[in-house]
Amino acid sequence: MHQVSIIGIGSTPFGKLEGMSIKELAVQACLEAIHDAGIEKKLLGAFYLGNFAAGSLAGQEALAPMVANALGLPNIPCTKVEGACASAGIALRHGYLLIATGQCDFVLVAGVEKMTAVDTARVTEALASAADAEMDGRAGLTFPGVFAMAMQRHMYEYGTTREQVALVAVKNHENGLQNPMAQYRKPVTVQEVLESRLIADPLRLYDCCPISDGAAAVVLCAAERAREFSPKPVDIIGSGHAIGPGSLAETDDLTRFEVTVRAAREAYTMAELGPEDIDVVELHDCFTIAEIIDSEDLGFFPKGEGGRAVAEGKTRIDGTIPINPSGGLLSKGHPVGATGLGQVYEIVRQLRGEAPNQIKGAEIGLAHNLGGTGVVGTVHILRRR
Amino acid sequence: MHQVSIIGIGSTPFGKLEGMSIKELAVQACLEAIHDAGIEKKLLGAFYLGNFAAGSLAGQEALAPMVANALGLPNIPCTKVEGACASAGIALRHGYLLIATGQCDFVLVAGVEKMTAVDTARVTEALASAADAEMDGRAGLTFPGVFAMAMQRHMYEYGTTREQVALVAVKNHENGLQNPMAQYRKPVTVQEVLESRLIADPLRLYDCCPISDGAAAVVLCAAERAREFSPKPVDIIGSGHAIGPGSLAETDDLTRFEVTVRAAREAYTMAELGPEDIDVVELHDCFTIAEIIDSEDLGFFPKGEGGRAVAEGKTRIDGTIPINPSGGLLSKGHPVGATGLGQVYEIVRQLRGEAPNQIKGAEIGLAHNLGGTGVVGTVHILRRR
Repeated sequence: MHQVSIIGIGSTPFGKLEGMSIKELAVQACLEAIHDAGIEKKLLGAFYLGNFAAGSLAGQEALAPMVANALGLPNIPCTKVEGACASAGIALRHGYLLIATGQCDFVLVAGVEKMTAVDTARVTEALASAADAEMDGRAGLTFPGVFAMAMQRHMYEYGTTREQVALVAVKNHENGLQNPMAQYRKPVTVQEVLESRLIADPLRLYDCCPISDGAAAVVLCAAERAREFSPKPVDIIGSGHAIGPGSLAETDDLTRFEVTVRAAREAYTMAELGPEDIDVVELHDCFTIAEIIDSEDLGFFPKGEGGRAVAEGKTRIDGTIPINPSGGLLSKGHPVGATGLGQVYEIVRQLRGEAPNQIKGAEIGLAHNLGGTGVVGTVHILRRR
Repeated sequence: MHQVSIIGIGSTPFGKLEGMSIKELAVQACLEAIHDAGIEKKLLGAFYLGNFAAGSLAGQEALAPMVANALGLPNIPCTKVEGACASAGIALRHGYLLIATGQCDFVLVAGVEKMTAVDTARVTEALASAADAEMDGRAGLTFPGVFAMAMQRHMYEYGTTREQVALVAVKNHENGLQNPMAQYRKPVTVQEVLESRLIADPLRLYDCCPISDGAAAVVLCAAERAREFSPKPVDIIGSGHAIGPGSLAETDDLTRFEVTVRAAREAYTMAELGPEDIDVVELHDCFTIAEIIDSEDLGFFPKGEGGRAVAEGKTRIDGTIPINPSGGLLSKGHPVGATGLGQVYEIVRQLRGEAPNQIKGAEIGLAHNLGGTGVVGTVHILRRR
């Protein structure tokens, strides 16, 4: 297997981006990544696009070749991959594989979603399609309901407190304050979280990520050629792509996403390191409780201790394992098909020493992207050269 | 690169399959392919699913891991790929690449679409999303309009007659008559085609493929192990995946799909053979005129002579180059995300000597899958061992 590096990154801001079509969002992020890499487009050997619901939400399928044409790419294989909220992580994995197996030296990978141009009912319907329509959907279960149950169970099982969970929102909004790419840049207090509108008991408004537009992109390169293009290449040293139960009926434990544990194991094994070696993390905090669960599933804390770790400040930017310094999905936003590459964009900025909430001396970062109610997911581990 | 074989095939019939969900359709085709291969599920190293619009039409995204769970597959990477009507061809290409590059020895690949359970307006909206929404869509152009213009131009440019085009429908319906998997099993005459309802002048109802449900699947295997499982393995000796213009505004020539020419060139080059070596073809006859254009783009006839070739019977099952002996999209049906693998299912049956309209001594077959208005497409060349 060849080593693979990231030599260029690009992203739109995340948020309500009026006046830009889904194609334009993807094009903007891609052009920025290509420019950042300083690469000629004709060198690119393939294009992967992560996207969840462009068909339902933007009326545009066949989006990968459409974006490629708009970019003026040469005749290369262009493929959209979909895995709910993990679509962009899966796209990255495919670009990685093409280079790792020697098929190409350069691959463009992007993720995009346009969610704010249609009414909320249509967005809710589209998001619900990421859960099992025949099982959970038929029972009336939506995502806030799933994570509300996970939170209830985590509190019951491990004594996690409501305040500990709220502190995830407080931390991530504080981080987002410094990130110009973030959708919400305003601080919230524990009290504001606890007094915000009830969504699915015990989850309240500030426990939930917003509906967002956005795109992010990276240019991947065979590692031995990376220095020709970038003074600060970042190597992909671990890649995990796993599946888990698609319906709550198939889930043994509401406080754990098996898919995260599996994808992390694959990525750690490939990288030959463990959670203790990671300097900075962007993980899938679609809800506050998700960050606590993810932080345990990824091995940063023993099961049940994620809530206490937040309260002790361990996941702050000055903590022992900084989590979501970008603001995470909660504050930076969650344009579903772009999120996984938005995380990678942030980790690369950290490893280059160019991030808004820069973690001093960060050498190794981890990006964790979760799809549906844990039916699919990816973990990527990146290291600065 | 390792050689890759097909050791198992499965398919639902194509048609209006009431009472079966999209997941059940995919599961049925996959189980049949796995059974046909005689392989234990635990040996499978990855799962690719081609699908176009399960989000819009069936309310189910994250469909690849959902189907994998329903099948009881182990924890393997599961990915949905989308490229409009070429989704299944692209899925096959990805399974092929994983084995060719030595990542896996066994991969399951399927394609599925469920189109008849929602109203026609929703299907029309979903299909329109395969064209460029910002260009062609805004101009009110839909697929029958595109192919109607292609037909007008082909007739003007090359003297192709209305009767020659109608003969494609006559031939494919005659072929479909013998195929138990086909949606329409009834003959039509030239006169019936010419008198059927006008859809987009000059295209009439029998010039158009139907709206269909269906799924098809194959089990791929590293060629050196194929004999352990199948007495009649079929090798994938050529694979092409290309892009072309996504909007008519970007198209130079309405009578040619550049994407087909490119994908065919890649596949022929890899296989080290040409159109004259092909014994049987399944190509993308979404409309009658498409078959004529495709047959020229694939190199079976010089540009402009496809219509005459049909009239001379060259593409019949007893002709010099039998095209769509299965009945093709026109008669067998077009469950969009399944079509590309439905074609491969038919070619494998031909090469095994088990097809309904068996071409005697067929050794090499070609499957051609076209997406959108030619924005993406694949060509695969198969050879019996």
